[in-house]
This record gives sequence, structure tokens and C-alpha cells, in this order.
Amino acid sequence: MTQKIIIDTDPGIDDAMAILFAEAHPDIELLALTTVFGNATIENGTNNALYLKQKFNCNYDVAQGADKPLTRPPVGPTVIVHGETGFGHLHAGPMDLDKVDARPAYQYIIDQLKAHPGEITLVAVGPLTNLSLALQAEPQITQWVKQVVIMGGAFGENGHRGNVTPFAEANIHDDPHAADSVFTADWPVIIIGLDVTEESFFSADYLEQLKDDAGEAGRFLHEVSRYYLEFYSDKLGLAGCHVHDPSAVAYVINPALFTLRNGPVRVVLDGCAEGMTLQKTDTRLHGHDEWEHAPKQQVAIQVNDTALLELYRHTLVEYGKS
Amino acid sequence: MTQKIIIDTDPGIDDAMAILFAEAHPDIELLALTTVFGNATIENGTNNALYLKQKFNCNYDVAQGADKPLTRPPVGPTVIVHGETGFGHLHAGPMDLDKVDARPAYQYIIDQLKAHPGEITLVAVGPLTNLSLALQAEPQITQWVKQVVIMGGAFGENGHRGNVTPFAEANIHDDPHAADSVFTADWPVIIIGLDVTEESFFSADYLEQLKDDAGEAGRFLHEVSRYYLEFYSDKLGLAGCHVHDPSAVAYVINPALFTLRNGPVRVVLDGCAEGMTLQKTDTRLHGHDEWEHAPKQQVAIQVNDTALLELYRHTLVEYGKS
Repeated sequence: MTQKIIIDTDPGIDDAMAILFAEAHPDIELLALTTVFGNATIENGTNNALYLKQKFNCNYDVAQGADKPLTRPPVGPTVIVHGETGFGHLHAGPMDLDKVDARPAYQYIIDQLKAHPGEITLVAVGPLTNLSLALQAEPQITQWVKQVVIMGGAFGENGHRGNVTPFAEANIHDDPHAADSVFTADWPVIIIGLDVTEESFFSADYLEQLKDDAGEAGRFLHEVSRYYLEFYSDKLGLAGCHVHDPSAVAYVINPALFTLRNGPVRVVLDGCAEGMTLQKTDTRLHGHDEWEHAPKQQVAIQVNDTALLELYRHTLVEYGKS
Repeated sequence: MTQKIIIDTDPGIDDAMAILFAEAHPDIELLALTTVFGNATIENGTNNALYLKQKFNCNYDVAQGADKPLTRPPVGPTVIVHGETGFGHLHAGPMDLDKVDARPAYQYIIDQLKAHPGEITLVAVGPLTNLSLALQAEPQITQWVKQVVIMGGAFGENGHRGNVTPFAEANIHDDPHAADSVFTADWPVIIIGLDVTEESFFSADYLEQLKDDAGEAGRFLHEVSRYYLEFYSDKLGLAGCHVHDPSAVAYVINPALFTLRNGPVRVVLDGCAEGMTLQKTDTRLHGHDEWEHAPKQQVAIQVNDTALLELYRHTLVEYGKS
């Protein structure tokens, strides 16, 4: 049975890897990309979403979302990781903006969830601003969504803490207030954070083989990831890259790849640990407890990385044949 | 060689356990108790410090310190743990306040450190307000102190996170701004947090034996701990209590009891994780890093609890013979 998903995204190189993964997998019906600031400006992110749609002849809608966080000052696009316009060395020419849905992303999300109650999985791989705005505008979406799968956060499992700060992951750090509202809303959230995304690794060789074996998508992913791999090589000393955003799509396709842990999650909103995600896992009583009334959510703490890499490769190679 | 120490304290039941430990050990010269709000009000804490001095005929000075945190609203005394006046069911009658040093605690600390450069270890087992005020008034104390040993914080080691909130320990939560200034000052700080203090346990039986074998001090510690053990029994389901404040004194006597980890430490100042302590232990570069310019401090991550309990018992039993 196919699963309807909307990817809320800030494309972004690993966003492209996730989007093509979803587009390629026969069990996924990718209804839309809703864009958000983050890896790139909102204008570049939307342009990149349209570029992929045209290049790979996709049916998904594109709706444009927030250009800045709810409360905190904007961090700005992560040019050092994703390049000037979000796709590394590749600069997509200006696309036809008439192809963008007239509604803001949060309203598009609300309308789709309402139209397909219980059917749609939201897969959010950027800052959570659009989801938070949708919750504010229509609290009933918590009843309509199937599940919310998020790439973001870092809980210290497997030694993984922050990437943009010592204790914060980029998507959550980009809008901690939005993230806290999404994690504490009464809907089923699965959080795929650095704890697992940094446990899976696309080696340079793996991406070379995708180029050879996965048709146009393989060649594109190889091309768009050159800049990304330069960052990994120069700054982290790694020959390849972690599997961030595609891991969230992998969860939708095969949840058994991940081990989840149950417990309420809050976000540090400012100060030195701004954007840090914290899951309460004990049952100890405390004099003061801001997790007490938050619903329990699922945090991924382990991944079968070998199976995930194989699933990704198999999906893209099959897609290349079509 | 004896070591000069000043205990900055909010007595407090486990404070009494730490103070008598220091008083009892032949290698420690306890110069003073400087009092601070926390487990009890400042008035009750100072009164308790004077009570111990009289009861056990101690030579230490008593100087009274801060009655409230630097910035945050006061949490108030932890009556549920330490009783109405800080010593459980025992209510020390009003002591002679003429015996209190005329100087505020922070000034007393400055003067003593200046008079004995390189000789004095500050052992802080309450909120860190006095130490922070001393740093503000005389930054040069960082050059005069031998070391600063702190009972406080929780770093998630051995599964220990917070006690008063899911992620914060009481002393740091009581004044996070003071704690952050003390941890980021350029002096050698050793942090004995819940990571290790909750790994050592005074069982009810252990305290019974102290009563039988350690003279007046043993009988007093047994009496004062009745209320504390009721809290542990009722709220945590434990027959005994963790070894919080005495662990800091144990470190001064025998550092080899503990395994330390090196790295800068910051404190979350407000919000859901207010008072959480975070040590950066990796060397990864981050776009934004509020640990970058903080000096490396030592955090205790393991303790030889068997040896610590034996050291404590041996010290008190010998003291009982004198």
C-alpha cells in the first residue's frame, strides 16, 4: 500500500537526496514539497524544489513557506555546507514561479491533511516553522495527520550531540520555538536525529557507484553532492557524507530500520544550548518538570545502517531503470 | 600535609555530613564555613553552621553569605528534603550571632585566599552565589586559589541527569548564572555532580553502624539524617541516601577515588532546562560555539564508591575515638 507524504524541506543537498528517494520508491506517493528557509533562502529553496520537479518530471506540488524563524533572529543559509543557492556548485536557473501553489505552505499542509484525514505522513527535514504555523492556524491537524517524521535534533546517543553548535542540530537550532511547539503537540512525532543520521554514511565510493548505476538520478546526486563532500572532507576529514534527510524517508518506507525510544521532548529556546533537544526518559518525580505535560514522542536511537544504505541504493537503481 | 579548605555551604543534612567529614579528617584544616541560601534560608543555614561549631567544638570561622540568587527568582528552601530549618527534625535553637564574621562571605573568601595564596581549596556544596560574588569583587582570586571543588550539576553520565528538574541538579538550578560564571572563570574547577554522587549510597544500615561506632558525630549524623531518609524512602523508594556533599570533601582527601573528564562547562540559564550543566568533550568545530573560549574544567564521571564509603566510615570512627 502506498503512503502519501508531504516533505517539508529546505533544499539543500541532502534534501535532494531525500526527495529523489521518496520520488523513486514505489511505496511512497509524494504529494508535495513545502519549502522553508534553512539550508538556503526561501527563494532558492523553492526554486530548487521546482528544478527537481521539472528535471525528474515529478507530479508533486510545490508550496512556498516561511522565510524566517518564528522568534529568534535568522541564522542565515548554510552556504558553507550547501553552497550559494543550496545545490552546491549547481545553480538552477530561475524556474517558473507560476507553478508554485498560491497558498502559503502552512495552509497547503492544513488543506491536504483535512482532505485526507489519517492518510498523510508529514516528513519534515528543515526548520519546523511551517509545521508550527500550521498548528497555530488549525490545531485540529493533530487529529488529521497520520504521523510526523522529523529529521532534526541530537540527543547524545551514540556520542552524537550537535553539529552547528556543540549541543544543537541545524534544523532545530534554526527555529527552536517552532520545534518545541511541534514536539509538544499532541500528534505522533518520530524524530530522526543526528543520533542515527550520523551513524549512516554515504561514502565517496557509494556515490560514485550511484552515478554509474542509478541513471539520471544517480548522475544528478553525484553532481549535486560534490560541494557537500568538499565540506565533509575539508571540515570533518571524512570521505563521504552522513545520511541526514534521506534517513527520515527511510523511516517511512521501513520503520524497522530504526530502534525508537519513547518519552516527551522539549527544546532549549535560547542561551548557550539554544536548539538542544532533550527527551525525558526516566519516571522520577521532580519538583519542577517542564516535560510533565508534554506527550510522549519517539526518538530514534539506533539504525541498521547497512540495510538503510542498501535500501537507498536499490531504490535509486530501480528508479534509474524506469 | 594538611590541606586548608573553606566549605561554602547551605547546611543542610548532607552538608552536615560533609562538614563533619572535613572536621574529622586529619589531612584537612577546615578554616571556615561560608554560608549561602539553598537547602535552608540563609538565617537557618548560618545558625546550623554555628550549631555544629559549638556542638563539636570546632575552630572554623563562620561567615554569612548570599540570601538569594544573582538573577533568577529564588526557588526557596528545599523543606521536603532538609526539613523546616535545614537539619530535618532537629531544630537548633538560636545561636550567638556575634560569633559570625563581620564580613560577607564573598569578602571573607577573598581575604583568606589573598592571605594564603596557592594554599586554599574552596569546597562549594551549595548554590555558587558567594563564589560568583567573590569573582566579581576580586577577579584576582582565580590566581590565589589552589582549586575549586564543587558538588553540583549532572552531566548524564551513568544515567544521572537532574534531581530538582529532569535535567538540573539543585545547587546549579538554585543559581545558574552564578554557576556559569564560576565554571567559566579561569581557575581549576573540579565538578563532583550527580554522575558520581548518586553512585555512592549511605544505606540505612551504614548510618546505623555509624551511630554505634562513631561516637557523638555518628549519633548526630544518624539523628539528623532521619528526615532525609524519610524523603528518600517516600519519594525515591530507597532505604538510605546518596552521598552528595561528602563526595566533594572525599575528592579533596583522595582525588584517586574519582575519574575525571576534561572540557569546558557551561550552564543553561533559563527555560525548560534551566540549571542544566553541559561539558563539551569533542573537538569538532562548530559554526557557533559558546564553549569555545571557556577554560577546560574537570568533571567527575566515575567513583570508587566502595573505597569512598570506607574512607568516610574510617574517618568518622577514628574521630569518634578522639
